[in-house]
Amino acid sequence: MQFEYYVESSKKNELIDIRGVLEDALKKSGVKEGLLNVYAAHATAAIIINENYDPNICLDFLDALNNIIPEGKWRHDQVDNNAAAHIKSAIVGPSETIPIKDGKLQLGTWQSPMLCDFDGPRKRKIIITLLK
Amino acid sequence: MQFEYYVESSKKNELIDIRGVLEDALKKSGVKEGLLNVYAAHATAAIIINENYDPNICLDFLDALNNIIPEGKWRHDQVDNNAAAHIKSAIVGPSETIPIKDGKLQLGTWQSPMLCDFDGPRKRKIIITLLK
Amino acid sequence: MQFEYYVESSKKNELIDIRGVLEDALKKSGVKEGLLNVYAAHATAAIIINENYDPNICLDFLDALNNIIPEGKWRHDQVDNNAAAHIKSAIVGPSETIPIKDGKLQLGTWQSPMLCDFDGPRKRKIIITLLK
Repeated sequence: MQFEYYVESSKKNELIDIRGVLEDALKKSGVKEGLLNVYAAHATAAIIINENYDPNICLDFLDALNNIIPEGKWRHDQVDNNAAAHIKSAIVGPSETIPIKDGKLQLGTWQSPMLCDFDGPRKRKIIITLLK
Repeated sequence: MQFEYYVESSKKNELIDIRGVLEDALKKSGVKEGLLNVYAAHATAAIIINENYDPNICLDFLDALNNIIPEGKWRHDQVDNNAAAHIKSAIVGPSETIPIKDGKLQLGTWQSPMLCDFDGPRKRKIIITLLK
Repeated sequence: MQFEYYVESSKKNELIDIRGVLEDALKKSGVKEGLLNVYAAHATAAIIINENYDPNICLDFLDALNNIIPEGKWRHDQVDNNAAAHIKSAIVGPSETIPIKDGKLQLGTWQSPMLCDFDGPRKRKIIITLLK
């Protein structure tokens, strides 16, 4: 079963918790055991799973990526000025796949699924597919 | 349903568009809704999804990885001289999973699936698995 | 079908081969063709697939990540002193998905699935889900 959602970022670089939309899709699907794939349909966004209870981890993650992939020094910047966002998205990847059991996401205690926007603010489409 | 394809690179570091083979496998499978997993069966290759309409994005991506994982400074280079290719492949990862709906890959407008060869030129095996 | 296993690390940064637990789960499942997803339920661990026949590749991989994500310079270090482990885990990702055919993992000759502990020594939970 497949569902589409839209998520809006408000900054250039931002992590947005998407646990709510994943749990909404999971509930609607009725799937009790299997896999949930969450996919960002964009070339300048990505999906990660990590801690955000301390929101500084999100800032540290974005800073670390900015350090290793600096802005403004790439060929594609002459066309669109967002090459760093493309490179970060390609490395991090557009999707994650999460196990489901007893109708629940089997996330670890400190794991939260998040959309990474590297070229916001934008409205981003995420596709959630459930298989059993 | 599962399919094997072979893709050939012509350079040491190269991105090769594989949308054609994914769509071929999808058509043969007859799957209308579900997930397609594309897997590179190699320790010095990987799969990404990103823009290649501007081919400079591919060069920027390869340059960025070369900058953060330089060649020739690793223990494994004494054995095989391709340690950087292993490290890049491990970070980027050997597979991507893409949602399917209405018998079509649900890629975003600027998303193209690509094989990354980090130790070419070589013939690379990719395995495509479709589940519904 | 879904299985849980526990794997113990003995160092701060360590790669642990998990092919044995994947093959155990695969055998128990009886799945002959499909996908196996292996998921680390932690925010400071990850899963990769790469060569470990030369164990120096594992050390090179860990060194490379330490070089690009140095320890001890992040906001979250003031809380928990493990920010680098979070950042590495978020970039590398908590899971890999591997094709199965004829009841076997379709890994390449030099591909081994490994748990990455970036904040050990710890006991880590991995969830293996098989779909056909």
